[in-house]
Amino acid sequence: MSGFNNNWYTEIFAASGSAFGLQVTKKLDEVQSPFQKIEMYETSHFGNLMVIDDVIMLSSRDNFLYHEMLSHPVLFTHANPKNVVIIGGGDCGTLREVLKHPGVESVTQIDIDEQVTRMAEKYFPELCASNNDPRATLKFDDGIKFMREVQPESIDVIIVDSTDPIGPGEGLFNRAFYDSCRKALRHGGILVQQSESPLIHMPLLKDMRSAMLDAGFDALQTLLFPQMVYPSGWWTCTLARKGMAFNGFREADAVKAPFNTEYYNAEVHKAASAWPNFMKQALLG
Amino acid sequence: MSGFNNNWYTEIFAASGSAFGLQVTKKLDEVQSPFQKIEMYETSHFGNLMVIDDVIMLSSRDNFLYHEMLSHPVLFTHANPKNVVIIGGGDCGTLREVLKHPGVESVTQIDIDEQVTRMAEKYFPELCASNNDPRATLKFDDGIKFMREVQPESIDVIIVDSTDPIGPGEGLFNRAFYDSCRKALRHGGILVQQSESPLIHMPLLKDMRSAMLDAGFDALQTLLFPQMVYPSGWWTCTLARKGMAFNGFREADAVKAPFNTEYYNAEVHKAASAWPNFMKQALLG
Repeated sequence: MSGFNNNWYTEIFAASGSAFGLQVTKKLDEVQSPFQKIEMYETSHFGNLMVIDDVIMLSSRDNFLYHEMLSHPVLFTHANPKNVVIIGGGDCGTLREVLKHPGVESVTQIDIDEQVTRMAEKYFPELCASNNDPRATLKFDDGIKFMREVQPESIDVIIVDSTDPIGPGEGLFNRAFYDSCRKALRHGGILVQQSESPLIHMPLLKDMRSAMLDAGFDALQTLLFPQMVYPSGWWTCTLARKGMAFNGFREADAVKAPFNTEYYNAEVHKAASAWPNFMKQALLG
Repeated sequence: MSGFNNNWYTEIFAASGSAFGLQVTKKLDEVQSPFQKIEMYETSHFGNLMVIDDVIMLSSRDNFLYHEMLSHPVLFTHANPKNVVIIGGGDCGTLREVLKHPGVESVTQIDIDEQVTRMAEKYFPELCASNNDPRATLKFDDGIKFMREVQPESIDVIIVDSTDPIGPGEGLFNRAFYDSCRKALRHGGILVQQSESPLIHMPLLKDMRSAMLDAGFDALQTLLFPQMVYPSGWWTCTLARKGMAFNGFREADAVKAPFNTEYYNAEVHKAASAWPNFMKQALLG
């Protein structure tokens, strides 16, 4: 699984019979944490690369797509998000995006693996630039347990920025976890979770959406965006809302956002909710 | 360039230090035409795969994205497209999509390499299903010469469905070719051309757009869509209009289109024109 020669890091996606590789100039680091193996590479064109248990997590050059789309659509959809929880997200890129919103009063990030954050601080310092924001709390603990025990109706937005549904991420893709999330959210609160590739993971996406509805969420919205380093280069996140339907987003606020983004803007937000026909058929047909 | 072992076809994208591979079950065919080397593979998950001069052209499973986006947006943008010319497009997938439009009266396809079409007939018969439509004419000739000599103001839509701007496709990406196209179009006519990846080919896209404006086109529109087998998995096409601006598209007609599409629909069409911030900055900033 580790490449077709020493100058490349290549990941094979067995489920789709496809592979993606980046040219590597140097292996920077490797640690085996209590939870997973974390590797760092320097690439020729994409900056640094983090790999966890042989799965590509992010590169310096293209992580903005994923981090922005996991943060800004949900925050501009909620009427007034003050208290945010991030489950996973140890590279801190999502945290940085969330903290750009001046109305956010607290963000608690719970990643099970402190080593991911330590590696990010070293090799993706730009993503960790807001870690000392007084509104941020970084916990290294079990996100499933945290969500089970947190005070009911205390959170506005939950962002699940996890690995795939195998290994440590597995328990974040089922009814029991969604039950906990729903209880933890206030009325109108929104859970958003990365939901894999529309081209090759449709059964998983369908199961996730069913489990979210089974847990009592009132409305779902799956957004699409490009993400080069993930299987198929095309990815989704799914929003699940408690107590009310989706009704657009705070478009005027998005247009006059007091911060910069590389991918996200109000038009991109609207565009992300346009489903191709094959997806409508698979999920609604 | 031909893979990291016998079970994979892997293409290395030197310009981005990245690579994409598909698992191969069998090599089906290889011909060396007067113009290029054409290889056919059977893959494990993506059906058949066509490779020209070591560059992946299309797979059975994901070509619908590219072919639909090169055809339907331009045809639903033009008020009443009757006469269409396709330059390149030898696999005939774009031709099939164009012929789905009942208002189209003639489509002339000019691909320089007859072997591409012969291989497509054999290995992508579904894409060639409309080749015998009485409205279709398949010519195997030089598209640059054709466009230079065609009767002025005789075409409504020109679709340039070519390889990358190296090798036989090179002359399709410059001012001289765009001059010919503009002359050949009627007032309100539209040229559309595949315009590479927004993530890794921005200088090329910028140059193409400049050359189109230099040739006297009045308005441009670059659309974005996913395309797994091309570099970065994210692709664009650019529309250039003669004599008038873009002003939306025939949305009501797209909504009640009398044919099926897998990716394209009216919402997807609108969404495709939403530019990320980094693209606005690079092209307009």
